[in-house]
Amino acid sequence: MDVGIVGSTGYGGVELYRLLSNHPNVDGCILYSSSLEGSSYAEQYPHLSGLSHESVKPIMIEEMQQLDFVFLAVPSGVSKELAQKLMGKKAKVIDLSGDLRLKVPGEYEEWYKGESAPQDVLGKAVYGLTEINRHAIREAELIANPGCFPTATLLGLAPLYQQDLIDPHSLIIDAKTGLSGAGRKASQSSHFAETQENLRIYKVHQHQHTPEIEQQLKEWSSEAGPITFTTHLIPMTRGIMVTMYADLKDSCTTEQLHTRYQSFYEKHPFVRIRPVGQFPGTKEVFGTNFCDLSIKADPRTNRVTIVSVIDNLVKGAAGQAVQNMNVMLGLDETTGLHHYPIYP
Amino acid sequence: MDVGIVGSTGYGGVELYRLLSNHPNVDGCILYSSSLEGSSYAEQYPHLSGLSHESVKPIMIEEMQQLDFVFLAVPSGVSKELAQKLMGKKAKVIDLSGDLRLKVPGEYEEWYKGESAPQDVLGKAVYGLTEINRHAIREAELIANPGCFPTATLLGLAPLYQQDLIDPHSLIIDAKTGLSGAGRKASQSSHFAETQENLRIYKVHQHQHTPEIEQQLKEWSSEAGPITFTTHLIPMTRGIMVTMYADLKDSCTTEQLHTRYQSFYEKHPFVRIRPVGQFPGTKEVFGTNFCDLSIKADPRTNRVTIVSVIDNLVKGAAGQAVQNMNVMLGLDETTGLHHYPIYP
Amino acid sequence: MDVGIVGSTGYGGVELYRLLSNHPNVDGCILYSSSLEGSSYAEQYPHLSGLSHESVKPIMIEEMQQLDFVFLAVPSGVSKELAQKLMGKKAKVIDLSGDLRLKVPGEYEEWYKGESAPQDVLGKAVYGLTEINRHAIREAELIANPGCFPTATLLGLAPLYQQDLIDPHSLIIDAKTGLSGAGRKASQSSHFAETQENLRIYKVHQHQHTPEIEQQLKEWSSEAGPITFTTHLIPMTRGIMVTMYADLKDSCTTEQLHTRYQSFYEKHPFVRIRPVGQFPGTKEVFGTNFCDLSIKADPRTNRVTIVSVIDNLVKGAAGQAVQNMNVMLGLDETTGLHHYPIYP
Amino acid sequence: MDVGIVGSTGYGGVELYRLLSNHPNVDGCILYSSSLEGSSYAEQYPHLSGLSHESVKPIMIEEMQQLDFVFLAVPSGVSKELAQKLMGKKAKVIDLSGDLRLKVPGEYEEWYKGESAPQDVLGKAVYGLTEINRHAIREAELIANPGCFPTATLLGLAPLYQQDLIDPHSLIIDAKTGLSGAGRKASQSSHFAETQENLRIYKVHQHQHTPEIEQQLKEWSSEAGPITFTTHLIPMTRGIMVTMYADLKDSCTTEQLHTRYQSFYEKHPFVRIRPVGQFPGTKEVFGTNFCDLSIKADPRTNRVTIVSVIDNLVKGAAGQAVQNMNVMLGLDETTGLHHYPIYP
Repeated sequence: MDVGIVGSTGYGGVELYRLLSNHPNVDGCILYSSSLEGSSYAEQYPHLSGLSHESVKPIMIEEMQQLDFVFLAVPSGVSKELAQKLMGKKAKVIDLSGDLRLKVPGEYEEWYKGESAPQDVLGKAVYGLTEINRHAIREAELIANPGCFPTATLLGLAPLYQQDLIDPHSLIIDAKTGLSGAGRKASQSSHFAETQENLRIYKVHQHQHTPEIEQQLKEWSSEAGPITFTTHLIPMTRGIMVTMYADLKDSCTTEQLHTRYQSFYEKHPFVRIRPVGQFPGTKEVFGTNFCDLSIKADPRTNRVTIVSVIDNLVKGAAGQAVQNMNVMLGLDETTGLHHYPIYP
Repeated sequence: MDVGIVGSTGYGGVELYRLLSNHPNVDGCILYSSSLEGSSYAEQYPHLSGLSHESVKPIMIEEMQQLDFVFLAVPSGVSKELAQKLMGKKAKVIDLSGDLRLKVPGEYEEWYKGESAPQDVLGKAVYGLTEINRHAIREAELIANPGCFPTATLLGLAPLYQQDLIDPHSLIIDAKTGLSGAGRKASQSSHFAETQENLRIYKVHQHQHTPEIEQQLKEWSSEAGPITFTTHLIPMTRGIMVTMYADLKDSCTTEQLHTRYQSFYEKHPFVRIRPVGQFPGTKEVFGTNFCDLSIKADPRTNRVTIVSVIDNLVKGAAGQAVQNMNVMLGLDETTGLHHYPIYP
Repeated sequence: MDVGIVGSTGYGGVELYRLLSNHPNVDGCILYSSSLEGSSYAEQYPHLSGLSHESVKPIMIEEMQQLDFVFLAVPSGVSKELAQKLMGKKAKVIDLSGDLRLKVPGEYEEWYKGESAPQDVLGKAVYGLTEINRHAIREAELIANPGCFPTATLLGLAPLYQQDLIDPHSLIIDAKTGLSGAGRKASQSSHFAETQENLRIYKVHQHQHTPEIEQQLKEWSSEAGPITFTTHLIPMTRGIMVTMYADLKDSCTTEQLHTRYQSFYEKHPFVRIRPVGQFPGTKEVFGTNFCDLSIKADPRTNRVTIVSVIDNLVKGAAGQAVQNMNVMLGLDETTGLHHYPIYP
Repeated sequence: MDVGIVGSTGYGGVELYRLLSNHPNVDGCILYSSSLEGSSYAEQYPHLSGLSHESVKPIMIEEMQQLDFVFLAVPSGVSKELAQKLMGKKAKVIDLSGDLRLKVPGEYEEWYKGESAPQDVLGKAVYGLTEINRHAIREAELIANPGCFPTATLLGLAPLYQQDLIDPHSLIIDAKTGLSGAGRKASQSSHFAETQENLRIYKVHQHQHTPEIEQQLKEWSSEAGPITFTTHLIPMTRGIMVTMYADLKDSCTTEQLHTRYQSFYEKHPFVRIRPVGQFPGTKEVFGTNFCDLSIKADPRTNRVTIVSVIDNLVKGAAGQAVQNMNVMLGLDETTGLHHYPIYP
């Protein structure tokens, strides 16, 4: 099976390359990029010396259409055009950008400040939060792979929303991410001397992942409304932690909630519910497709705190994309994703 | 004027030494420690080679009583004993531990798991949040210097609570700190290989600064009840950011709130209100006594997000202690604290 | 095949666990530790939640003797006792400590400040620098796995010494390492706040890896004498870079040297010679068993600079140990070691 | 006294601003920049909120000529033009670029790949290594402020060269620097995700500071020839460590060398010779103008290892520039530079 990686020179692209090159059902990766075409991939990424012998190709729509799978790891705004051209051809498409995730007319325009993909493309795109949408993903030809923050957030909230345990109006989401989330392009906000030994908040009330989270929450609960979602930049490369707070509808102990989470995620190999009293650190999922969750009730406030961690480039991007490919192929979901976290 | 630093070999102690050695009204620092007595201070802290010629003395109560000021930078539990012995003598005492902050019987026992200081000591101890308690501090002989998280949090919330702008029940406080807050003693949780490229949450619903924050909020508002307060460890050495969320009682724009904050802190040299739309990073107060604040209303949710940053070892500990000393001496509050942040 | 990991709770041990758990010829890992016996491994290392179900056993010599392979990842001083008790039994032993490396009487005593292993044990122990000693390793029952610095250094120098290209008296070795090399035990020298944003030199002229390097160099060249070898602590977790300098015997271009290196390491899958003009960063081998090398001649000085990088926990410890196990088993040397570096 | 900072928006410029704003003899800083003219300085550098009220001006030669001091903190290549235009006017000029340091015709062209400043400008420019050239600096009107690496290196070598203790042909200089040395301009080589948890070597045998070091060494010793000098990027913001190695001409103990260093630098307030057996870390000079030195002889090899650390932005740039200004003004050399290192 031959797969294409479009936007191969970005961090999402190179992580797809790491995972797909070691995937037993993938014979070869074909690398595309609109900016570095013609260059040797191992020169772009010297850690691949001796491992990659590919050159980066320009965008070649017709060739891509004939592949088995095409992963779009290009910026939002670019992706929708490619997705449209690839639709209805041989290649199944997994889009890692934000272009195909928002279904409500006007939302993309509001949050992404650009024109939305056409409704027929949006209509075909299945939201690829694997643990939640596995059945639809299996039949899909086009996947809107979730954003990194929505993945960690929604997996943390699913049991509470589906079982109607919290008051949706009370939800607060405080997210923290490492700097690889900003991509490979150099900028002052990701310059080492400005970010090391620094902690910043950004896009306050304006992060484009806000409507993506809201859209899913509304599917789960008719009470769900606008949420408070903020994001912080942590001086580390990989990893997301989302800390969530909500009022419990009824009184509930940590142990009861823990049991619900365990049973909710029992058959989901990539979600690990931590023992009562233990909370995950981001490094404990480093390099893997795991999402680790903890939950704790506070009887003083009748509120619950949920902690969710992922590796933003794996479960938050490339890993979940491969997990979706596995589902679409009818493979065991963990195929090619059996990594142990690198620790320390 | 001679001042004593007890617990001089910890990070709070050495930061006091940096500030007091360059304070125009301080002639000399006398250094005490129960663990490293007799050692040369510059050997303990080689960055002071050629700057410090002091040896560290053992705890000597009688000598301390005759000093002008004594700073207690020892762990909670130890401090209350020393404070008691120093009371009513010549030396004014500034206690940086948590021992003298909680006034409500039973709270210290619950959160610090030890026996509280006697009520007469507690009764004399003025809570040293300078911007709020300046008048009482001026007359005090014993100061309970605030905790690092309460300092950043309470300065961020004061205008909202004093002007009754938010619903106290809705308050969520998500705090993040660098690792120097854990002190100088080596432990696995502050071991480099376990903390670098890692982000962790700790003491969920159990941090001992919780009742300290609640106590002050209750003074400001009869509606204030138990709060949700969580703390995260950031892979950096210095700096605290506290992100706070609350429901607005009435609709209010960011500009209106900004104006209120500016006028509330107009005469407070160490609180900097950032322009609308700009949020502070922790590095922007590095090494200084500043507390930088931003506030933003979200019309979608009718909620407000407040961001507060400090250097945990300066405004969160040693700097505020010196600021309090200045107030007690009738000096300009900024004496000896005119540092510019080190950037980058 | 069942393998034992002694000292399983240290960083070397847990890296062995990562590699061996995913090794196709290994059925199970049995974990031993003298300090944390009885505890659940996943509690010691929460990143292994759901992956490890082992408990840590106490040291059990008789059980160990019956295993197929035993890896000793215990401190120098402890290892020699265990190695002695395991000798001549079923289990083949790979010792990751420094106990069995130095063959010259008196050297261990001088550099390790303890009593050497008995000569009969030393005599059986084959120095496990795989690329150099592959034939002897194949027949060995006891391996002295090389130190992290000697591995990077000796692979960098082998072509120059074996082909008599440099003046051994001129050799200078400036080594830099991340902090995981110091192990998991907390200490002030690996405390986050003391090491982050800091760069230190340590054990100047006294590092115990010095005689290990000298011993091998003397095997290669009768002219080799005492070397200058210094080590620096870099604020990062993993990775070693060794920068080496030596006078060329005859004038030689970078291209000529490059060709020699390429041909020297042609059949060695874990040594990557970088293209002329490109130098490796430590992150480019992160998590893998690669040793990446570059060499450059300086016509101005007629000197050569050699740069060698490894992941100290993989090629510098656990990875090379597994590579040696593969050789001893007659397997392809790369079995279970096909990792791509995690980047970024 | 009014001083101008040209290139004020770079890291050298903002560090000059920090030092000069707190200098007792400086009334005001006038800020110039060719790229960000018209902008508010506090917007460029939000850590200066409330501290700086200046706007950044465009380059205005005539105005600059009338100032008391002008600091040129602009890139090499730009500086020489400005220096030329300012020569012979009221303003004394301190140039922090590499443009005026190399006196031998052809060297600038070779190492900086551009046209050298005219000989009359070069002839007037005094090399501002304060500890070495104090007398000439006192009379100078134009200073070529030394590079960061040459400062640390030359202060480390001066006693050995001036007292003819080592063989110049044997000298090896292995330098390590934090990333602020690369300036504020974003680039991939200073992108957080590419540099954190990474260690790289760069400009091997090609660093433009090589001839600057050689030029001074040749002044000290007729035997001095081309040197081996390499530079490494450390994942930290500030700090340089230079490790130097050389053969001793005669046998010499560490204690003897230590005594020579102590007496050589006895009257130099910014050079701190560490006690025998103690080596400085970069963090121990953080934010200050200190250069800390250690030296150790190795009787096994009859070689000496010298370690020198500075803060690259202070003693390696802005701090030494202010020190030179103090000398030129006949002030105490430490005026405005009495900082204690920020630690931890």
